[in-house]
Amino acid sequence: MTFHLPDIESLSDKDIETILAKAQSYCEGNVERSLEGKIIFNIFMEDSTRTRMSFEVAAKRLGADVVNFGSSGSSLKKGETHTDTFQTLNAYAPDAVVLRSPEYNAPRFAMAMFDAPIINAGDSWRAHPTQGLLDALTLRQTKGDLNGLTIAICGDIAHSRVARSNYELLTRLGVSMRIIAPEMLMPKPKDFVNAERFTNMDKGLSGVDCVMMLRVQKERMSEGFIGEDIDFFYNYGLTQERLQLCADDVHVMHPGPMNRGVEIADDVADDPNRSLILKQVANGVPVRMAILDYAING
Amino acid sequence: MTFHLPDIESLSDKDIETILAKAQSYCEGNVERSLEGKIIFNIFMEDSTRTRMSFEVAAKRLGADVVNFGSSGSSLKKGETHTDTFQTLNAYAPDAVVLRSPEYNAPRFAMAMFDAPIINAGDSWRAHPTQGLLDALTLRQTKGDLNGLTIAICGDIAHSRVARSNYELLTRLGVSMRIIAPEMLMPKPKDFVNAERFTNMDKGLSGVDCVMMLRVQKERMSEGFIGEDIDFFYNYGLTQERLQLCADDVHVMHPGPMNRGVEIADDVADDPNRSLILKQVANGVPVRMAILDYAING
Amino acid sequence: MTFHLPDIESLSDKDIETILAKAQSYCEGNVERSLEGKIIFNIFMEDSTRTRMSFEVAAKRLGADVVNFGSSGSSLKKGETHTDTFQTLNAYAPDAVVLRSPEYNAPRFAMAMFDAPIINAGDSWRAHPTQGLLDALTLRQTKGDLNGLTIAICGDIAHSRVARSNYELLTRLGVSMRIIAPEMLMPKPKDFVNAERFTNMDKGLSGVDCVMMLRVQKERMSEGFIGEDIDFFYNYGLTQERLQLCADDVHVMHPGPMNRGVEIADDVADDPNRSLILKQVANGVPVRMAILDYAING
Repeated sequence: MTFHLPDIESLSDKDIETILAKAQSYCEGNVERSLEGKIIFNIFMEDSTRTRMSFEVAAKRLGADVVNFGSSGSSLKKGETHTDTFQTLNAYAPDAVVLRSPEYNAPRFAMAMFDAPIINAGDSWRAHPTQGLLDALTLRQTKGDLNGLTIAICGDIAHSRVARSNYELLTRLGVSMRIIAPEMLMPKPKDFVNAERFTNMDKGLSGVDCVMMLRVQKERMSEGFIGEDIDFFYNYGLTQERLQLCADDVHVMHPGPMNRGVEIADDVADDPNRSLILKQVANGVPVRMAILDYAING
Repeated sequence: MTFHLPDIESLSDKDIETILAKAQSYCEGNVERSLEGKIIFNIFMEDSTRTRMSFEVAAKRLGADVVNFGSSGSSLKKGETHTDTFQTLNAYAPDAVVLRSPEYNAPRFAMAMFDAPIINAGDSWRAHPTQGLLDALTLRQTKGDLNGLTIAICGDIAHSRVARSNYELLTRLGVSMRIIAPEMLMPKPKDFVNAERFTNMDKGLSGVDCVMMLRVQKERMSEGFIGEDIDFFYNYGLTQERLQLCADDVHVMHPGPMNRGVEIADDVADDPNRSLILKQVANGVPVRMAILDYAING
Repeated sequence: MTFHLPDIESLSDKDIETILAKAQSYCEGNVERSLEGKIIFNIFMEDSTRTRMSFEVAAKRLGADVVNFGSSGSSLKKGETHTDTFQTLNAYAPDAVVLRSPEYNAPRFAMAMFDAPIINAGDSWRAHPTQGLLDALTLRQTKGDLNGLTIAICGDIAHSRVARSNYELLTRLGVSMRIIAPEMLMPKPKDFVNAERFTNMDKGLSGVDCVMMLRVQKERMSEGFIGEDIDFFYNYGLTQERLQLCADDVHVMHPGPMNRGVEIADDVADDPNRSLILKQVANGVPVRMAILDYAING
């Protein structure tokens, strides 16, 4: 059966452990050109230089070829349906498909159209499973076993696929999850059911082992969801002062790109003892290598 | 002598048979990395994600590297002449050049500028020879010998490079060709000289073995050439009812992207017994592999 | 220590000779896939199809993979700082970085952010060292030893990174340099200190062994720096008449793209006995191959 990665929920515990172990092994330099002669399609219906490059580097490190497809200039613009576009792309017979889409559940739709494995590189606010996996790898490398840790995700939880995938994965790995957000950006009660909810950041940070900040999406500001930069920073910006409320060995994560001075202070983002942010970026490559190899070679 | 593919007319009968046989062999899985270390330039002066990707996949399946060149952001925008642009690109010494251009006969112009083989990926309304070849392969796989078949091409014949290349190739392979179009979209009398002409679609479809629908180009509508979508569909849309007028084992082709409900009904496009449309897309890759290999390795 | 190429001044004499000798050897066909498995980032913050393709072909000729990054659609557009963008790209662990940027001294900034070698593909009006090196290779292939030659660079010297890098390199190789420009486009007195300056082109060309024409940047015209095309051509356009003022075996160079009829006459650009312009383009590939190989393999 074809392996797909639409979301964290689709992974068995064994899948998760296999992927993380393989990624760790790549980190230690055990890389072979296991995808030589394979062709990966990077289908990005939404701009994302970072994730696109991370997947492209991952594929090429394993010897695969990559063909990029963006929605601008494509047949979609000529009125073609998504079904026809996906069936057409499938007819070129890629060995795996990486899909970023603004549309809810696009990967599951694609799974019905393609014969090849579909790897979700982020859809709507629903899921971004490779981000969850790379964050878990980063945490394990830093903290060891995650069971029993307390981790807070802060910011626009309601609209964040990163928050959802991290919540799903980390909860399964034994982490107590907290979410911190202004009321308007809190998810519905039926989501994040096992997370503790805080609208007051100082209370939410109390004693946590790790803080995951989310990017403030400026378009939400113009919609009046979260006020001005400076207000957001005052209420929810991560500062060295606020880090004092956390556990002694607290670490800081951010999926990037950062708005410095909005959701995170410079001296936190760049704190060599606290910030795991560049380590997250670096781990994106081996995690995506592991997923591509697992999807294509098993 | 360098092999070029500006149009079907440039191919000898032996060229055609060699390319189709090689493509068929690729379809059967006999693929080697025969273009390892070669660099193919994909020069697309006009947007075309489908054809560009098909050539890119073809090149990479044979182990070649691809360098994409689009006209946006290029030196052409800085006032450079086409001659200088082509001579510059030639100086980078590509092993083959795939060229899509809106300009009439651009491939023959390029042939004078480049040392490498030029493969026409479509120029103006003049020629799209790789589409003709992939359609011929698809028809042979479906119908066997094409000699004696009757095939109708329907739609905006006057402005269609697909129609021209198919007409040229299929006529040579022994097919009786018909063209069906409203008067305003009929080609000049000196073109398609051996095709039977019909303005009434029902009459034109009578007894044909295959119907090739063309994409309605919406810009023609705004120019008043062909009226509204619904009128076009009423007069020239391919429906299951109209398929009843054709031969019992009629098949349907379309070069894509389709306008469903304009030139073709959903239940025709998706009819598993009639529609060859996805098979055409799939055959684009092996046919272009065969052409690239033939052009570079002989 | 990591080799970087921010500008000509950073190269030792041995670096220069090694790069030029290796490039010459590539010209003679001694090419191996010495960068197999390496990943080169082409970071182009400014449009430049020619230079981007030249580097991309160079990398692929040596077997490397290339990942392109343009500033459009990138995180920079989402408010990310240059520092964060560069640190993120560094975390993907490229083996070398080719950087084109409109910002002054961007390569030296990048050198502080990346672990990999930085190759400057042109920054602001400051430096374009690979153009200097390919011009030196072209001149050596044509003239032999450069020591004692006199070469004039003509046009918008003040804003030209090509002029600066050629001036630096050719002066070191023993060439007497002249610069010819209207007063408004002359560089400051502290720049090009050892070049002879001419505002009258006929005087400046007297007896020179080579003329390097620069591209007139049309945007300067709209700013009133250099008047209309025809006036510029009258005063500073390179014509066959003006070539009569030079040495008997004078040659003509231009970094492209050319404005024919503005800075150079057609019959000069295309003169097979005088023009080295296409040879310059062709030499761009082996010179960039040599630089990439030298940067990565030493």
